[in-house]
This record gives sequence, C-alpha cells and structure tokens, in this order.
Amino acid sequence: MSSAKPIRLALLGCGTVGTEVVRLLHDQADDLTARIGAPLELVGIAVRRPGRQRGDLPVDPELFTTDALGLIKRDDVDVVIEVVGGIEPARTWLTEALRAGKSVITANKALLAEDGGALHDAAAEGNADLYYEASVAGAIPLLRPLRESLHGDRVTAVTGIVNGTTNFILSSMASTGAGFNEALEEATELGYAEADPTADVEGFDAAAKAAILASLAFHTRVTAADVFREGMTGVTAGDMASAKEMGCTIKLLCIAQRGADSVSVRVHPAMIPLTHPLAGVGDAFNAVFVETEAAGPLMFYGRGAGGRPTASAVLGDIVAAARNKLTGTRAPSESNYAKLAVRPIGESLTRYHISLDVAERPGVLASVAGVFADHEVSIATVRQSGREDDAKLVIVTHSAPDAALAATVEALSRLDIVRSIASVLRVEGGAG
Amino acid sequence: MSSAKPIRLALLGCGTVGTEVVRLLHDQADDLTARIGAPLELVGIAVRRPGRQRGDLPVDPELFTTDALGLIKRDDVDVVIEVVGGIEPARTWLTEALRAGKSVITANKALLAEDGGALHDAAAEGNADLYYEASVAGAIPLLRPLRESLHGDRVTAVTGIVNGTTNFILSSMASTGAGFNEALEEATELGYAEADPTADVEGFDAAAKAAILASLAFHTRVTAADVFREGMTGVTAGDMASAKEMGCTIKLLCIAQRGADSVSVRVHPAMIPLTHPLAGVGDAFNAVFVETEAAGPLMFYGRGAGGRPTASAVLGDIVAAARNKLTGTRAPSESNYAKLAVRPIGESLTRYHISLDVAERPGVLASVAGVFADHEVSIATVRQSGREDDAKLVIVTHSAPDAALAATVEALSRLDIVRSIASVLRVEGGAG
Repeated sequence: MSSAKPIRLALLGCGTVGTEVVRLLHDQADDLTARIGAPLELVGIAVRRPGRQRGDLPVDPELFTTDALGLIKRDDVDVVIEVVGGIEPARTWLTEALRAGKSVITANKALLAEDGGALHDAAAEGNADLYYEASVAGAIPLLRPLRESLHGDRVTAVTGIVNGTTNFILSSMASTGAGFNEALEEATELGYAEADPTADVEGFDAAAKAAILASLAFHTRVTAADVFREGMTGVTAGDMASAKEMGCTIKLLCIAQRGADSVSVRVHPAMIPLTHPLAGVGDAFNAVFVETEAAGPLMFYGRGAGGRPTASAVLGDIVAAARNKLTGTRAPSESNYAKLAVRPIGESLTRYHISLDVAERPGVLASVAGVFADHEVSIATVRQSGREDDAKLVIVTHSAPDAALAATVEALSRLDIVRSIASVLRVEGGAG
Repeated sequence: MSSAKPIRLALLGCGTVGTEVVRLLHDQADDLTARIGAPLELVGIAVRRPGRQRGDLPVDPELFTTDALGLIKRDDVDVVIEVVGGIEPARTWLTEALRAGKSVITANKALLAEDGGALHDAAAEGNADLYYEASVAGAIPLLRPLRESLHGDRVTAVTGIVNGTTNFILSSMASTGAGFNEALEEATELGYAEADPTADVEGFDAAAKAAILASLAFHTRVTAADVFREGMTGVTAGDMASAKEMGCTIKLLCIAQRGADSVSVRVHPAMIPLTHPLAGVGDAFNAVFVETEAAGPLMFYGRGAGGRPTASAVLGDIVAAARNKLTGTRAPSESNYAKLAVRPIGESLTRYHISLDVAERPGVLASVAGVFADHEVSIATVRQSGREDDAKLVIVTHSAPDAALAATVEALSRLDIVRSIASVLRVEGGAG
C-alpha cells in the first residue's frame, strides 16, 4: 500500500498488553500503513524467557531476545514500546532510547509518576517523542485531550475513577450490600483483583495516575510522592448504606484541584451524589471528570485496563510517533511552565461525613457541636438516631481545611460522651 | 515571556463564539504564550457591522473590518478562524486561506458536512492545517481523539447525542411528562431553542455532525446528503411513557455504523435502555459513545454549545495550529483511504417499537403477527392491553433491515383490524 520506508518498532515486554499490541499490529497492518503513510515493522521483542510458548502469536520467533538494551540501541529501531512496568530497568532503557532520539511509547504509570520529569528531559535532549496514553485510564483517550485539546483553556479540577479493581469492589458493595472482604473475594475470583491487591485497594495505583493527570492538567511537575493517598479498605457496608441514605454512593477518587497559585492532588474514598456523572460509572470502568474555566464540565469514560483496551491506546501512540518520524517532527513537548506549588492535604478544602456512636444523654449534641465550633468547622447537617442508652450521630460538614477537619475528629475521639467514631469519609461533588 | 515572532490570527465573525474567542485570547494570553512558545496576535476581525457597540470587548476597535477576503489575503496572517457559519461566503474564504497556506480553524459544521472534502483538498494543496473541533459537540474533545488517539484501532460504531436543544426537550419530556410543544416552549424561553427551531428539531444540525463524525471514524468521506434524517417533532408524551414502561428513554441519536465494507449513517429519535450510558445525559448536554474493536466502549461527555465552551474548542485548535506553524509542520492530513460505500437506510439493521390501536376481536394478534412474518421480521415482545372494543398492541421487533420494517408498518396500516398506528420508534442500544 505504500512504498515508504517502514517505521521500525522494538517492543519491550510481551505479557497481557504486549501480546495484544503484537496482534493488533498484525491484524490491522493494512489500515495502519494507510493511516501512517508507511508500514510498521516489528524488529524485536525483549522478554525474560524467549523460549516460552506464545501460542498462536503472529510473530517470527526469531524476534524474541533477552537483550533489551541491545535491541534499543540497534540503529534500525525508530520507536521503542515499553509494556514491562516498574521503575528499573525500564527507566534506564527508556532514558537510553530517548537520548538516542528514539520515540518512546510507554504504559508505565509508576515510572512516569516517580520520574516523569527525567524522561521528559531525556526526550527533549534526544528530540524524541514520549507518549503514554495507556498509563492512565487504559483505552480512554484522555492524555492527548489534556496535552492538546484543552491547551486553550484552564483546567480547574480533575476528578477521576482511575482504578478498575476498586471501582468493581465499590460498585458491588453498593449494589449487593456486601462488605469489603466479600466484594474483594468476588473481584479476585472474576480476575478483577490481583492475588496481592495492595497497589489497587490502598490507592497506590490511583495515586500514580493522579500525579500524571495533575502534571498534564496544571502544567506543573507532580510526582506520586506529592499525592495524598488513603486506601478504601476501611469502607464498610454501613458506610455504603449511610451514603445511600444521603442519596450518594462511595467511589475511590483521584482529585486534582487548582488553587490561585497552587494545586492539591489526593486519592481517597469519598461520597458523591448519585446525580454526579461519576456515580453511574459501574463495574471495572474508569471515568475522568474534567472541569475547566471555559469548556465547563467534561467526562471521559471507558475501560481502564485489560490487554486489548490498553493495547488500543498504545497503538494510537505508535501511529502518532510513526507519523512524526515520517514528517521529521515531534509532538508538543512537556508543558511544565506553571510550576505551581503542591499544597499538602491539610490545606485542601474538603468536607467530612462523620458517624459517631455517642451516649444518649442531654447535652450530647451541644458538646459535639462545640468541638466543631472550636475548630471553626461549620456543620451542614446532623442526623441523630437514638436507642435506649446508645445513640448515633451522623454529621456532614461544610468545606473546611482538611487539617481542621482531622483535628475535629481527633478532638471528638477524646470526648467522654463519644463511644466510638464509626466512620469518617470525605464528601465530594456537591453531595450532602 | 517569549521572544519568538508572534503567530498572527484573523478572526472571521464576532458573534457569541467570536467574542468569547477574543476574550479568551486576551485573558489567557500569558498561558497561551507559554504553551505555544510564541505569543498570539489578533490582527483583524471581519464583521458585517464594524461600528456596532461591542461593550467591554478587550480589543482595539481598529481591528474590525468588513473586508474578510482582504484580511485573509494579508501577508502577515498565519491562522484564519471562522465562526460565521453557513456555506457561502465561508467556503470561498476558507478555500482561499488554505490554498494560500494559512491554517484554518472553523466551527462550521454545515460547510464541513456539505463540502469538507474540498476543504481538505485545499488544505493539502496549501500544506495547511484544517482543524474543526468546535464543529461537533462543542467543548468536548472528540474529533482529535477520533483523528489521532483511535487511529491504532478500528471504530465499529459512533452513537451520539450531538444536539443540545433536542436533548433538553426530550429530557424535559422524560422528567415532567410534558408533550413536545410544551417542552419546546420551555426550551425557547430558557434560550436553548432558537426562534426557528427547524434545524435542531428536524435533525439537520445532528445530521451535519453525523457526517463529520462518520468521515473521521471510518476514514471515508461522508456528506450530510448521505445521512438518513428523521426529526423528533413526532415524539409524543405517550411514546415517552411507553419507553418508561420498557425501562427506556427516548433520545435523538446520530448513529454511524461500520459494516464489512460499508457504513450507515442516520439521525432519528430512538428508545434506549435507561442503563445505557447515553440515557443519563440530561439537559442540553452532549455525549458521544464510541465502540471500537480493541478499546471497547468509550464515552465523551460535555457541553455541546454555548459561546465559551465552543470558544474553548476553538482555542485548543488555535494552540495546535500555532505550534505547527512554529515548528513548520502540519497535523495528520485527512484520512479517507477506506472509501467505504454508504448504505441506504433501508439496508441498515434496526429494531422497531410499534404501537397499534386495534379492534378487540379474536384473531387480531394472529393477523398482525402474520404481517411481520410475511416481511421476515421477527417479533421480540408483544404487549396487549384491551378495553371493550378497543385494544392496544405494543410490539418490539428483533433486528431487521429497515426497509423490511418500514414495509411491515405500511402493510399493517392497510389491515382492517388496525385502527391506527399510534407510533413507530426505532430501538437502539440493546433495549427491549
């Protein structure tokens, strides 16, 4: 279809995503050639075990090698695709490739969130492309819109469900009334949760993605270490029931907000109203809600994980990098000019939903309300449900600095009349 | 912030969108300069009445001119932004600009849907950029994902709510039980509908957008004339009630589907299940649901109209065109290699929801069912509700060629026992 010289690709890693990249390159070869104006040619695949059976993968077995660095350094490699994950050796490989002027496509959120700046620097040094659409929200075209489409606007907030495992668990808790452990078990059986679910349920995965999103949205380098992170293992069936009573559900959110001259980036479970577009995002789907000054609210929805969806994002980036190679150009380079400070969580304005078991005694509400007043936290609603000598108070606050809210909870826990703090959850999206 | 030579812009039109473009260029000037690497400079604004009061618009009155063509031809103009609309003189202006190597940003859906191919040809001739993100779904970054992000995947269907006026009307009918006229009146009062709502309610606006979406999704030139179009003025309160009974709602959809070697593109009201992501898109919001082979389902949601949202999309395109001017490159050119045939509506596979008033008499259902069988249309569900001598049959079919379904309805209307055909609606999104 084209007489142009092929664009040569090196693939690092051939697991779930890598095999689907190989398949799509094969199955869509004619279309890709037509869209790019030159054929793509896979010239090598670096894996740990080249002899491993790879079933019906449509690829010459000779292409497999254990020498990733040797493959990257080959003169005939134009584009390097990394789907291995982890910090090292990926960082060494990609830095080497970028400095040598090879375009890099990566799905490696951990590396980008820890050291994306260094990769961007290497890309600038080598005048190479660095694309990573697959690193956040899998198949959803999200980073290109943030990197390009919204560059004429000012993003004020990004709120996302960016972890499919935890969304599956929370959706299941919401629809069946199950507790966390039961829902996690179901997720594991269905293949939505890994044997060790820590990275997902403790919010590490979402925090890495939050750092990447915040960097792009606010033209500021944000790393995973800048992101406040709280997992969702503490969300109980009771919390979900309480959310329902308020017309809400609970989601694990990544939230990046822009202030006047700072940003705040955090990951935690939160109550959101059922009327919020993110509330209806069920199963293992991802969605990212973007607010801007001019465009208003936008939402991007789709599959956040899985071999083929992730490979679709990788292929989109391959087409872009290949076109740039052909025309001798480069994607817009990193935009980090704003260099906004990252505010600690204590300074972020949040709202709390606090559920207390208290003694049934006159003056309880007055004492509790006094603690809020002492910390200059304003109460939005109180619901009191009493039994003989055991009552429950559910309090939703107005917005206040998170530190003041945390101090309020701490002070409440020291009140004699407070038997226990049943749960504390942040409230987002205008709920409450 | 930058010592680079400015990128010079000519603006054609200064109505709702144009004034917001001017405002954003002014308010975000520093950010835009930092993102582009050079300042933007507005060197002229072509309008019909240059003397008209434009309030506090932050612009030198000297910039206004009635001579659009003269402005376009100025040597110092790099990028031409058209927000006038209509076929002529916009076509002449933009063709002239593109051939002269000036990048064009346009929100003109009518022109793109009628003669986009000629504009793309002119862009190729002049080696210029042609961007039109604002022409479909306003602020939603949708065309860039289709033009770039999804180019490593195969789009199989695009289903969209792309007209805010009709979505407002249908959402209002669904929530209040109002009829079409009442809901239209409310939309007009609130400024969601124009004095003459024909282009919206008869589906002309959506059909133009459907042509643009189908062209991008399927790498095939599709024009408005290729799009089957049916308006939504015939949707009644009774239809909406009937949809609710089925767990559905009614939306005016643009639907573009890919077959083996052809595409079908159509705009019509349809029932969709309340569980479909598009069902929850309320008010005047737009959303586009994209299905692909590898990525799976994707949805893009946001404001489809309004001065500032549309201007946000225009500004994003300005940034892209300016960056390309600076680096001497060009966006990926039109991709129309697939050249798929456009199937007429009769060959499209659809499903019908048919509501009949019939005589209450033994054998009625058998006669009616016989008509479906004669046309090889398979019935999915029948609901019969009878009164003394007047009964109602609600029939939902399985998928069949639209021509067979239309012929079935025609044959039913000729049956003696059928008193009237109360309504016929297509059913989409797995409803029913």
